[in-house]
Amino acid sequence: MQKFFQPRSVVIVGASNSLFNLGFTIVNVLVDQQFNGKVFSVNSKGEFVMGCPGFKSILEIPEAVDLAIILIAVRHVPGVMEQCGKKGIKNVIIESAGFAENGDSGMALQHELDAVARCYGIRYMGPNCFGVVSARNRFCCFFGGDPRNYDRIFQEPGTLSYVVQSGGIGAFLMESLDSDVASVNKVVSIGNKADVDEADLIDYFQHDETEVIGMYLENFRNGRKLIASAKKSKKPIMVFKVGRTAEGSKAAMSHTAGMANDDKIFEYACRQAGIIRLKSIKELHSLPKVFTTMPVLKGKRIAIFTNTGAFGGITADIMIEEGLQMAQLANGTQQRLRKAGQLFNASNPVDLGPGISKQAIVDIFEILLSASEVDGLISMPNIWHESIFEAVIELVKMCRIYQKPAAIHIPNSVERIISVRKHYRLPLFESPEEAVRALSVSYQYYKYSMKKNILSGFDSKQKKLTDKQDKVAIIA
Amino acid sequence: MQKFFQPRSVVIVGASNSLFNLGFTIVNVLVDQQFNGKVFSVNSKGEFVMGCPGFKSILEIPEAVDLAIILIAVRHVPGVMEQCGKKGIKNVIIESAGFAENGDSGMALQHELDAVARCYGIRYMGPNCFGVVSARNRFCCFFGGDPRNYDRIFQEPGTLSYVVQSGGIGAFLMESLDSDVASVNKVVSIGNKADVDEADLIDYFQHDETEVIGMYLENFRNGRKLIASAKKSKKPIMVFKVGRTAEGSKAAMSHTAGMANDDKIFEYACRQAGIIRLKSIKELHSLPKVFTTMPVLKGKRIAIFTNTGAFGGITADIMIEEGLQMAQLANGTQQRLRKAGQLFNASNPVDLGPGISKQAIVDIFEILLSASEVDGLISMPNIWHESIFEAVIELVKMCRIYQKPAAIHIPNSVERIISVRKHYRLPLFESPEEAVRALSVSYQYYKYSMKKNILSGFDSKQKKLTDKQDKVAIIA
Repeated sequence: MQKFFQPRSVVIVGASNSLFNLGFTIVNVLVDQQFNGKVFSVNSKGEFVMGCPGFKSILEIPEAVDLAIILIAVRHVPGVMEQCGKKGIKNVIIESAGFAENGDSGMALQHELDAVARCYGIRYMGPNCFGVVSARNRFCCFFGGDPRNYDRIFQEPGTLSYVVQSGGIGAFLMESLDSDVASVNKVVSIGNKADVDEADLIDYFQHDETEVIGMYLENFRNGRKLIASAKKSKKPIMVFKVGRTAEGSKAAMSHTAGMANDDKIFEYACRQAGIIRLKSIKELHSLPKVFTTMPVLKGKRIAIFTNTGAFGGITADIMIEEGLQMAQLANGTQQRLRKAGQLFNASNPVDLGPGISKQAIVDIFEILLSASEVDGLISMPNIWHESIFEAVIELVKMCRIYQKPAAIHIPNSVERIISVRKHYRLPLFESPEEAVRALSVSYQYYKYSMKKNILSGFDSKQKKLTDKQDKVAIIA
Repeated sequence: MQKFFQPRSVVIVGASNSLFNLGFTIVNVLVDQQFNGKVFSVNSKGEFVMGCPGFKSILEIPEAVDLAIILIAVRHVPGVMEQCGKKGIKNVIIESAGFAENGDSGMALQHELDAVARCYGIRYMGPNCFGVVSARNRFCCFFGGDPRNYDRIFQEPGTLSYVVQSGGIGAFLMESLDSDVASVNKVVSIGNKADVDEADLIDYFQHDETEVIGMYLENFRNGRKLIASAKKSKKPIMVFKVGRTAEGSKAAMSHTAGMANDDKIFEYACRQAGIIRLKSIKELHSLPKVFTTMPVLKGKRIAIFTNTGAFGGITADIMIEEGLQMAQLANGTQQRLRKAGQLFNASNPVDLGPGISKQAIVDIFEILLSASEVDGLISMPNIWHESIFEAVIELVKMCRIYQKPAAIHIPNSVERIISVRKHYRLPLFESPEEAVRALSVSYQYYKYSMKKNILSGFDSKQKKLTDKQDKVAIIA
């Protein structure tokens, strides 16, 4: 699998200098982003593309090639695959569309691919996919994009790795993360997933820098394989799946050639394997930061901090609906809170009211995080003020000290949240719902980890979890 | 009620030049924003505030006063209320807190207010509220805000009117709408709503520029009054209520002194009265634009347009879960679509694929809107391109011609959506979920209107609805 992500040499079959050539856009990104492997192109004229040597056939390339990317008319693909086999190329990404998603004739072509692959021992991604983005070694074979789109991704490689059955969703995720504190390690678009599938990639992501695995699926074919890989995973897996309804499933079928799956079976598989099921496509980029910036939530009892009473009640409703609990603050805790600042309300939700002092807020955070009756915190200060941001920066540090997570939201327009999040590098969520969901999925992962751990020792697992979280540097 | 919103003269009791004086902040906004009525202040020194005449008592003011705003220590409030009565002031806004939300002694003070009000025939808002923002006449008695916050609201008065049981939520809504195409007419913070309540305001909003009524409620006291007013409303009413759970209800009680209500009773009241119940606080500012910029949805059958296959399936799932239907496109419609552009998929969801041409997209929009089997459109073009925006601008115009609504979303980062929405004045929604919900609430309102109309004539009502929508100028 490694050669899909870190090829020393790659050939783009179908890259030429013609107008609107899609293979060209792949070479363009690799050259522009200074990918450090060799790049070849194959086209009918055998012409060079952006300075990269060109040939009329793969077989003419005078040296070994790790990875072939194929983006040509569908009927020629099996023949080129055969040439890959003869050349000794064991890794192929087929980006061409027109296979199983296109009916019976396409399905027959896809079967041809399988036969060739089996004959030569080739592993392949796709067909009908965008392939790989690998931030750490500046490798990308997504077609059609602007090279500048990859600037931030390659400059600040992260720890989120995604498997998507849609290149469009891959692009959507990368773009959305551009204004967030978590960023991308790898993105793999697997399209029709005729060979390499999400289970293979879960296995692969166990051994790289990945901290959280995210998946966008339009169908699942081998439930047992998925469950087996997910069960072995030591990293949280989050999935958003299309096809919860018959209509959604039908729409997805015309896209990546799945079969209509029973959503209940998928739901069962997720429960069995500890896969976190997401409620919206947005959660796929907005929630992972709860794992990369915060300790995991080890209990249900949440304290809410606010200085706008309304958001205390709003958040309490959402928490209960998500299966979390309002922490019952002990009398001692409430007394300490009252000493820290002039509170409207010292029982949960804790309401500071309009007076703002950085120290008072920091003290409140510390009192809540250190209270044994509190497992985690939702912080919702509703003021745009320097001292609030300074207090929240302290909060993020304290969460690591007390090994309890905080989900932070500032209830104003999303635009401002995003601008502040970028500037201060704060793990801010964009709504009360999102903040609550973040803690909810964190707890879900913790519970599953503990269940697995009944076999291998509770304490060591707990230690491991916290160690992993501790490694992450949050504030630059 | 009119004097609460358009007073010719107003006195702020408690406004002085002391540091951190909250009454001062009200005078500051009125003066800075050039409110065109007279402004007086009452404080212990009788001093002028920002050039506005000051007195030691209301009774010293040498002319008639339409409205008194009281923001002083809670124990003095009933006495000042008595003075209002003697002075002949019939409208009072009590912003001071410490009444029923503060336990028994506060409750006793609140009863005193009632007695004085009854004795002198005073209508009052609050206590424990922020009062009124009225954009058209630049009137605002919210305290604590920066006058510049009101610049855009007063410069571009809109047609959304809100009733909120939290000044913080009022500020949140105004700020969130700052980057949207719909804007505020009036915002009323009613706090403990001891006298003036949401039902009174629904009645009042029937006779001004309001097109959509939004409500944030923490409790409801007089269900029958609310149902009666809502049933008479000729304008859609949307509500977000806290207290769906016991914990949320408890948190709200400490805020605005409600009673624990059974959420099922409230749900029943909403169904009876055609009140649209919202699922998140965000919907309170994001959904009303479907009414102010689009014709109402008159059937369930929705066509989806996309050029990223994944979002077709994602949206289909959400639509079905929201109770809408995928339109079954007739063969003739599909043939016309195939002539308009090179489609990946001509059945619903319609997938244009990567080729972009403004004319092709406009043609597809027109074919879908004109098809008798389509009641409304969800448009989700996934490309940031001038020709896309031009096509979407045409779409908004066509919706008025065909009297069918479109909910438009562009599946990229929210940041970009917001920047484009402002710049092009497009009614863009921020997620597929939001777009679907917009059509869903539109249809919900239509159905209820039709039901009521069985009594008063189906056709005239339909005409009226469309006339109302037609008046709205969408593209500047």
